[in-house]
Amino acid sequence: MSYQVAVLAGDGIGPEVMVEARKVLTAVEQRFGLEINYSEYDVGGAAIDNQGCPLPESTLKGCEAADAILFGSVGGPKWTHLPPDEQPERGALLPLRGHFELFCNLRPAKLHAGLEGLSPLRADISSQGFDVVCVRELTGGIYFGKPKGRQGEGEAEEAFDTMRYSRQEIRRIAKIAFETAQGRRKKVTSIDKANVLACSVLWREVVEEVAKDYPDVELEHMYIDNATMQLLRRPFDFDVVLCSNLFGDILSDEIAMLTGSMGLLSSASVNGSGFGLFEPAGGSAPDIAGQGIANPVAQILSAALMLRFSLQQEEAASAIERAVGKALAEGYLTGELLAADQRHNAKSTSQMGDFIAQAV
Amino acid sequence: MSYQVAVLAGDGIGPEVMVEARKVLTAVEQRFGLEINYSEYDVGGAAIDNQGCPLPESTLKGCEAADAILFGSVGGPKWTHLPPDEQPERGALLPLRGHFELFCNLRPAKLHAGLEGLSPLRADISSQGFDVVCVRELTGGIYFGKPKGRQGEGEAEEAFDTMRYSRQEIRRIAKIAFETAQGRRKKVTSIDKANVLACSVLWREVVEEVAKDYPDVELEHMYIDNATMQLLRRPFDFDVVLCSNLFGDILSDEIAMLTGSMGLLSSASVNGSGFGLFEPAGGSAPDIAGQGIANPVAQILSAALMLRFSLQQEEAASAIERAVGKALAEGYLTGELLAADQRHNAKSTSQMGDFIAQAV
Ligand SMILES: CC(C)[C@H](C(=O)O)[C@@H](O)C(=O)O
Ligand SMILES: CC(C)[C@H](C(=O)O)[C@@H](O)C(=O)O
Repeated sequence: MSYQVAVLAGDGIGPEVMVEARKVLTAVEQRFGLEINYSEYDVGGAAIDNQGCPLPESTLKGCEAADAILFGSVGGPKWTHLPPDEQPERGALLPLRGHFELFCNLRPAKLHAGLEGLSPLRADISSQGFDVVCVRELTGGIYFGKPKGRQGEGEAEEAFDTMRYSRQEIRRIAKIAFETAQGRRKKVTSIDKANVLACSVLWREVVEEVAKDYPDVELEHMYIDNATMQLLRRPFDFDVVLCSNLFGDILSDEIAMLTGSMGLLSSASVNGSGFGLFEPAGGSAPDIAGQGIANPVAQILSAALMLRFSLQQEEAASAIERAVGKALAEGYLTGELLAADQRHNAKSTSQMGDFIAQAV
Repeated sequence: MSYQVAVLAGDGIGPEVMVEARKVLTAVEQRFGLEINYSEYDVGGAAIDNQGCPLPESTLKGCEAADAILFGSVGGPKWTHLPPDEQPERGALLPLRGHFELFCNLRPAKLHAGLEGLSPLRADISSQGFDVVCVRELTGGIYFGKPKGRQGEGEAEEAFDTMRYSRQEIRRIAKIAFETAQGRRKKVTSIDKANVLACSVLWREVVEEVAKDYPDVELEHMYIDNATMQLLRRPFDFDVVLCSNLFGDILSDEIAMLTGSMGLLSSASVNGSGFGLFEPAGGSAPDIAGQGIANPVAQILSAALMLRFSLQQEEAASAIERAVGKALAEGYLTGELLAADQRHNAKSTSQMGDFIAQAV
């Protein structure tokens, strides 16, 4: 089996954690007899510096020729003076999502045994653990809806954005949420604001229709405002959280922070043909870049998601996840996951990669 | 001084906590030589049952004739089968906000000394306390923007909502945020999604302009997704949180839940003439209605906000707030604020009202 992967390491800690993901992928290639060919492309701030824009045509062409995109992270203080449209995050991620119609974003987040203390939640809540997957619609809603712009003059000048969803768009993401739930604890919580938004009323209707095909999965609807609250009190009651683009942006970040270990969270953005972009859920962390202390686990788990969703190599994906589980269970951790008085035991970025590659 | 107040007690615990707010207002009238005349009107589910719609014309007329609206809470399982538009919450609150142009929603939320343990946050975070006011724009944005509706057929059928903000709308709410900050810790965190929304780009521009008139107030901008996270890690770093309608809906509820004591939180929705609607931030809690155990403090504090913002009786407002502070400081609490092994000390709804009226 031979695959082509476009590597977009990006900015900040992106390049250094990508090195570790590649290490682990090499171990996987050997163990499972795969061949993965990599081509590296500029993206984000690095692409702005080298080529004048966050997503150069050559990068897009390289991604088109690949079976999947392994993405690092983009952004940093150097580029925040740019207009939002031209900034690394927005200027690279949104066009990539749109161009490849990566409508489905999956963000798993769980509290790992032994790491409950990292959660910002009260001990009696976090000790119960949680394990949630956020299924977020990624190419519709208010992110891409037209018209979007400005009109008028002076104090009457106004800006406008359009939230827009079709039955078809809602149906395809809802199906994925229910299928995901079937492989888990069989519960979907669909998030909306049906008491205010026309889009949410349609959302609820279509999700109800889709639910009929999955009688083994429990469905509940929850308003977005209520969801932000219930997640704080009883995160363990959630299994699959189904969201539109904007609500998913908000809730997936809230859920990620509830784990207290952003450096462990990865994210898959896929289209209808299985092509996808796989990236850590955290940012480019420019403050710690280049020091060899960044946690590569999120990037390594992104590689696992790539193997699962785009390369159809479930066994290889699971092998990586087990290897990561082993590292965490043995307390083999980077500094940010350790209590202050345990930091002397912190492993470096490359030690983590070595350990996990070894364990594969 | 004589005032006219429209009392809309509503559903669930609304009527019983309203009795206590009236008790406290009577004490205030005596102490400060005010005269408040009340007229009661149906609203929400009660209005649906009695008059067929959640906001009858007679209720609206009664509110028009008053100096302020003291609102209880609306909604309950009896009315959830209705279409969203006709449900008590949406069908009463949104038209009231629109009709009276109550563009400014203020929601103070703080961790009271001694009640930190109620917060769902980890002890080392909650022990640092926090004290935030959410200033939410309440009559614009995606709640009221046109067009809103549906079009098309079959799977191509789509729904749409419009988010819309003018400079003028942003400016008037931003001013209130800065003025509020001047009376507090002098920091405004303005929430937006300027990397995606045209409305947010304009929002940021206008907020920057307004900030120039308040050089003593620090301004920071934060993306909504990041804000949901930072509030979990360091709520104490926030003072005034300035939000558009939708983002304010989400964040004010997150902040409320972070206190762990929704029964203590009140909310003011005011227009440019000082007319306003004052209500508890929690819901109608139908599960505990009629048992005499509901916490009346949020309703009592709503009355204080009414005295401050609509009746211009700052001293009377502060007297109520001090009286509430005394009750909390002395551990005079309803059951939901007490640990399980302390519940036998729980005070009833009317005991709370009596104590606070007495203390005024
Ligand atoms: C960078 C930004 C446009 C993006 C989004 O809002 O989708 C990011 O927050 C994310 O969640 O991937
Ligand atoms: C009931 C609903 C329409 C309302 C809103 O979304 O504004 C409520 O959630 C609130 O925050 O007052």
